Amino acid sequence: MSAKEQILSILEAFASTERMGSFFVDNATQDFLFIRPSGNPIDAKGFKEMWSSGDLVLESAEITKVHKFDFLGPDAAICVFTLGSKFTYKGTQNDDLPTITSIFKRIDEKWKVAWMQRSSGKSDMSLWNK
Amino acid sequence: MSAKEQILSILEAFASTERMGSFFVDNATQDFLFIRPSGNPIDAKGFKEMWSSGDLVLESAEITKVHKFDFLGPDAAICVFTLGSKFTYKGTQNDDLPTITSIFKRIDEKWKVAWMQRSSGKSDMSLWNK
Repeated sequence: MSAKEQILSILEAFASTERMGSFFVDNATQDFLFIRPSGNPIDAKGFKEMWSSGDLVLESAEITKVHKFDFLGPDAAICVFTLGSKFTYKGTQNDDLPTITSIFKRIDEKWKVAWMQRSSGKSDMSLWNK
Repeated sequence: MSAKEQILSILEAFASTERMGSFFVDNATQDFLFIRPSGNPIDAKGFKEMWSSGDLVLESAEITKVHKFDFLGPDAAICVFTLGSKFTYKGTQNDDLPTITSIFKRIDEKWKVAWMQRSSGKSDMSLWNK
């Protein structure tokens, strides 16, 4: 697999109902943080706890569209994508289309997620076609 | 100036009432996009138009804190920061503390903003100290 294929396959694995919660514990750098729509950071362990609390139940997730993929050096890349996801939060149904900026780093020949920031869930996909 | 100093000085220039609106027209890459809290993208020209519409009036802006600065290769860097800003939108006062993930690239010896995603405005700064 090319480096780009490896990174996209990591994102596909992230967008999975079985793996999303614990995903960053296994696939992120030590200093990884996930920036929530509020701007508040959460680390891999906190992200896992959020999903295991029972308040959030993920029904489906997919990489709806990759808007940008670009190498930033021999061992770093940026990938910006829309993550389609359906979930319930304390019983309330959500159908989200957030934009996510993700940064990947290659460490010891293995690509890791080094940073992610996600928007709120109601992005307008048509704006990417302009 | 070191590369890091150059990049931070670009961010300081961005956080200015005189320059913010037109900033990306002069200091961003051709394919630059700014991701709004909604997840919707806006380009440098659209960002400028947003600020020149008259609906938004910036009163003050500052780089409140740099949370992360990291080179991603010889010619790329990530900088994550809180942008303190006071502005009015259609007459309503706002006092914002969004988290912004920014990516910089060096092109022809000059550092340019290549990507920015900002959160909504009410982040909790105390969460960065954990």
